[in-house]
Amino acid sequence: MNEIQNYSRSPYGFLLQGSLEIYSLSLYYMCLEYEQKPDFFKKYMTRPHFIRSLRLTNCDSPLRHSPVFLRCRENFPQVIFMHRNFRIVPQIMFGSGSFNQLEDVLKPKRVTGGGFMVFIIDDVFSGKELEKRLPMRGKDLLVPVDVTHEPKTKLIDELVVKIRHYAPVNPDGVIGIGGGSTMDIAKAVSLMLTNPGSSADYQGWDLIETPAIYHVGIPTLAGTGAEISRTCILTGPVKKLGINSDYTLFDQLILDPELIEGVPQDQWFYTGMDCFIHNIESLHGCMLNSFSKAYGEKSLELCREVFVDNHPESAEKLMMASYFGGMSIAYSQVGACHALSYGISYVLGIHHGIGCCIAMNVLEDIYPEGVAEFHDMMKRHNINLPKIMPEDISREDMELMITTTLNLEPLWENCLGKEWRTQMPRERVEAYFRRM
Amino acid sequence: MNEIQNYSRSPYGFLLQGSLEIYSLSLYYMCLEYEQKPDFFKKYMTRPHFIRSLRLTNCDSPLRHSPVFLRCRENFPQVIFMHRNFRIVPQIMFGSGSFNQLEDVLKPKRVTGGGFMVFIIDDVFSGKELEKRLPMRGKDLLVPVDVTHEPKTKLIDELVVKIRHYAPVNPDGVIGIGGGSTMDIAKAVSLMLTNPGSSADYQGWDLIETPAIYHVGIPTLAGTGAEISRTCILTGPVKKLGINSDYTLFDQLILDPELIEGVPQDQWFYTGMDCFIHNIESLHGCMLNSFSKAYGEKSLELCREVFVDNHPESAEKLMMASYFGGMSIAYSQVGACHALSYGISYVLGIHHGIGCCIAMNVLEDIYPEGVAEFHDMMKRHNINLPKIMPEDISREDMELMITTTLNLEPLWENCLGKEWRTQMPRERVEAYFRRM
Repeated sequence: MNEIQNYSRSPYGFLLQGSLEIYSLSLYYMCLEYEQKPDFFKKYMTRPHFIRSLRLTNCDSPLRHSPVFLRCRENFPQVIFMHRNFRIVPQIMFGSGSFNQLEDVLKPKRVTGGGFMVFIIDDVFSGKELEKRLPMRGKDLLVPVDVTHEPKTKLIDELVVKIRHYAPVNPDGVIGIGGGSTMDIAKAVSLMLTNPGSSADYQGWDLIETPAIYHVGIPTLAGTGAEISRTCILTGPVKKLGINSDYTLFDQLILDPELIEGVPQDQWFYTGMDCFIHNIESLHGCMLNSFSKAYGEKSLELCREVFVDNHPESAEKLMMASYFGGMSIAYSQVGACHALSYGISYVLGIHHGIGCCIAMNVLEDIYPEGVAEFHDMMKRHNINLPKIMPEDISREDMELMITTTLNLEPLWENCLGKEWRTQMPRERVEAYFRRM
Repeated sequence: MNEIQNYSRSPYGFLLQGSLEIYSLSLYYMCLEYEQKPDFFKKYMTRPHFIRSLRLTNCDSPLRHSPVFLRCRENFPQVIFMHRNFRIVPQIMFGSGSFNQLEDVLKPKRVTGGGFMVFIIDDVFSGKELEKRLPMRGKDLLVPVDVTHEPKTKLIDELVVKIRHYAPVNPDGVIGIGGGSTMDIAKAVSLMLTNPGSSADYQGWDLIETPAIYHVGIPTLAGTGAEISRTCILTGPVKKLGINSDYTLFDQLILDPELIEGVPQDQWFYTGMDCFIHNIESLHGCMLNSFSKAYGEKSLELCREVFVDNHPESAEKLMMASYFGGMSIAYSQVGACHALSYGISYVLGIHHGIGCCIAMNVLEDIYPEGVAEFHDMMKRHNINLPKIMPEDISREDMELMITTTLNLEPLWENCLGKEWRTQMPRERVEAYFRRM
């Protein structure tokens, strides 16, 4: 039993904690296990319980044509291929000026007599043109949010209390207008209005039980992929981790390239690079399948049109790149750069996009071509990355940064394979931080 | 009033019949009208009713940067940009062997006590391995369908009667397993189980009022894009036209590349070319936006990997190409090749994929590069296209073919622009047919 438990701590063990009861292995690791521990494998494959629950994920890896896999499959015909049932935002409006149609979109959703909508908007727009264009009607509630710091579970809980005090019924909808942080706040609030307790209770995978309030995402920054992801990243009392669930996904997106046209150059670049990095990490990872690959490759091409060619339709292209990049990682995984960026974001409070750039800047040994391309793009746009000043970071904080980074097991496994721990000792992580 | 009516017969008039009450113009045509009839435009733009209802579609055309548009917009700030709110199949499972998970997918949908599922399967699989792998439980009903001829509204109505006789309650789900025709039958049956009358009553745009029965698509051929489209093409007593609605879309797709691996070479090629042609038509059309473009360009690349490079992961690539191609045309439109193919399909009963190839073969004056590439792919795969023998076609049938083809106004407008009628007289259409 112990052995099985240990075994199931491999690849997807982390992902599955607290969610599925079944045990999954990616095809890659199954081949590895089968080659390295054939007796162990045989022993448990012939136990009925184990056989029923062993399901193979990422079966589209080219490994499925490998002799070791074909041999393994022949010996164990009971192995079940397992693919994720991938939920997608079901309704999308794309195009310059589509923001003007928000009123039409919300109209059929105003179902509660005397009910209301909640507009959660980045407070950078307070008093600005965009805020005035919101189709606020009747008792609709405007909630400007300060996203100087990335969203905390405490903020979500406070917003939910605020909305509950505002009216005795739940709103008919929650509309998030802003960058990745605002998207995440809107997603989290729409979930917590229908699920009891604190948002911190749901940081993890598939812990949400009740569907969210109808929620709409309207990005004003492109690159994070938050508009299409099944998570909303929150900093809780003990961890930075998202509420991952199918209910987290928006019900409707409005992708209006006009909204991202006035973004300051630095912010535009850092957020766009988040998307570029998603693609590099997804395409170089071992969790890639043909679905992720098609989206990731096209997203990368679009990034190049934006950041290298300065294409005249850059806003449209970047918005599509962000959407495609999000679709790519949603069916695969990010990697080393995101893992390192989480460490510096959690401890130093650095924003996600810029944190990713700071991390990417020192990862030429892992993603040589991607980092070279990243440096070229930085140069073309005269970007001077801030330094994180490692000499000012206390020993304790440095250890916390390293621990936070190394805890992101699926990211490292996607990047370096199952034996990643031997390749990524704490010293190597620290060395990256010291060069940032 | 007459003038307005005439005016609204332009681009989207055809699409809007029987559906939206609003009047829409694509940006392209608005610019054209504004330049050619400035007085007319001004007159109606200052009438309140007209202003409220003039909405601009396809606003992502590069024309939005053109001086004529910027001038027009400045003079008429009340013009509303109008983008389609695009519905997408919300749940997708992708990967080799994913068909094995159909049982898991259906389990939570079996909600009626003593209820049943309907499996609609191409009868080419009768008695075969795939049929045996269907997770039939309890009172589930197997419905093999003969798709030698493309589906007729009469067939749909008969299947609905059959299912109603089989049980006093509606099924919990309809699962379609097969090529484009089988997909279309499953979509139509799931709609007609909840909507009264004959399926012929709903051929058109957005005529369906009640949501369909939960329905799942499992393609065994790749290329048609039927798995993701919002239509199901049916031959009715008076026309070949789909039931176009958001309810037509599948609720779930299972894209298992293993299922398309045993397809006969000719059928594989013709169906794959349907996808290649979708991309050529979408990318060369004036209804293209950045969303359609990103999907169409990537789909075209994937087609080349399959039909030129013979990539080892061809089945996965072609399945993704079909999905992306479908997404591309869903937000834009097909063109001349599909218009001609509908003519020969309707009158001569030629299957859609092969009809498209026969039409593409003679369209070098409209799509020179696309047709050259198509010829190259035919050669690589030793394809000998059948001839349609125009000398054996009666004068009456020839006229009907021409009329059917020219009735597809949106397709021609997408291909040749608003003045397409002057470019495509009946004689030119007949000349294409005579060369097929």
